[in-house]
Amino acid sequence: MNDKDISQAVISRLPRYYRYLGELKEQGIERISSRELSELMHVTASQIRQDLNHFGGFGQQGYGYNVPYLQEEIGNLLGCHQKHDMILVGAGKLGQAIVGYINGKDMPFVFRGAFDIDPAVIGKTIGNTRIYPMEDLKKFVKAHNIDMAALTVPRTEAVKTAELLTECRIKGIWNFAHIDLHVPSDIKVENVHMLDSLMKLSYNLQSMETETGK
Amino acid sequence: MNDKDISQAVISRLPRYYRYLGELKEQGIERISSRELSELMHVTASQIRQDLNHFGGFGQQGYGYNVPYLQEEIGNLLGCHQKHDMILVGAGKLGQAIVGYINGKDMPFVFRGAFDIDPAVIGKTIGNTRIYPMEDLKKFVKAHNIDMAALTVPRTEAVKTAELLTECRIKGIWNFAHIDLHVPSDIKVENVHMLDSLMKLSYNLQSMETETGK
Repeated sequence: MNDKDISQAVISRLPRYYRYLGELKEQGIERISSRELSELMHVTASQIRQDLNHFGGFGQQGYGYNVPYLQEEIGNLLGCHQKHDMILVGAGKLGQAIVGYINGKDMPFVFRGAFDIDPAVIGKTIGNTRIYPMEDLKKFVKAHNIDMAALTVPRTEAVKTAELLTECRIKGIWNFAHIDLHVPSDIKVENVHMLDSLMKLSYNLQSMETETGK
Repeated sequence: MNDKDISQAVISRLPRYYRYLGELKEQGIERISSRELSELMHVTASQIRQDLNHFGGFGQQGYGYNVPYLQEEIGNLLGCHQKHDMILVGAGKLGQAIVGYINGKDMPFVFRGAFDIDPAVIGKTIGNTRIYPMEDLKKFVKAHNIDMAALTVPRTEAVKTAELLTECRIKGIWNFAHIDLHVPSDIKVENVHMLDSLMKLSYNLQSMETETGK
């Protein structure tokens, strides 16, 4: 399998398959045709087949997909079969909410520590996750084999903080700061630009009003 | 302008232009060529020209783009020239963090009220935003001319809550629940599926390790 051939658009759709298959599994459904899955997910059956063919297909002619098997295989692709120890950088309200959200799920992604510069929060805990001073970050990443960091610092601090994470040889940055990060190519960045998403929603509302003359 | 011809991929890129142009404006830069903008944004100059041509172009041969003008025009497309009164549904930690984040920005998007079923949070405030019982939602949306709702309820409550918002004739749902919503076509939904984004990051880390044999 050569991952370079697989577009980020295809990869972006994998977690959605994983989510729907998880729901089907919860409902006790063992088997689904690509047509049924396509109706459920509001995509074409041909798109599903094309997407999954990048990874070997998983389906059987005349049978469809085995739900628990396909969910597990996609989960493996997404790294859900191994533990991911994470840190949070920027333990403000958004950061704290994210730690609570992720650590509260039965998932292999777990925040092990949080870091901040604010003496008012250092020493406190978010659930079981302690907030440490920024000075301890490098040592902590190494000692705990941390591979991913969620970045929830203000925009003005984000570039500097990403540089620090680069020095720590972190492998992935889950970036919530409202800025794009340019890091070496062996570090992967995934952005959650919340304000961009809100503006896209606002665009779509406005264009609907223009069309309907409301 | 016929918005139906403009793909969601193009629209998704508009907030990013808006963000970069805002940064240039802050730095006092008045004018930029498409080549300079393309280097800054790590996209091709041809993509920038193609994207902006959907909306009339805005550039001048031999001059490039006027930064404050282009930022304002894109802002207008994104509905940033008019006030958007919003509500939050689900005033847990994530919801509260989102209200704080959005209301703390100098933006036309403002949360006017939050709603929850939990008696422990009803009556409290998030900054200036009061948390009301769910029963008051319909009346509030009408009285305050609310056009958008952020949905931060648990996955199991999301479908039911989206139905309530549909009855209230809300125009847009900013969905943070880990589920896709199927609503009438005159209601726009924009998803922030945080866990999908984290899994995509995890996929990319894993595929990098496979490639480099780490």
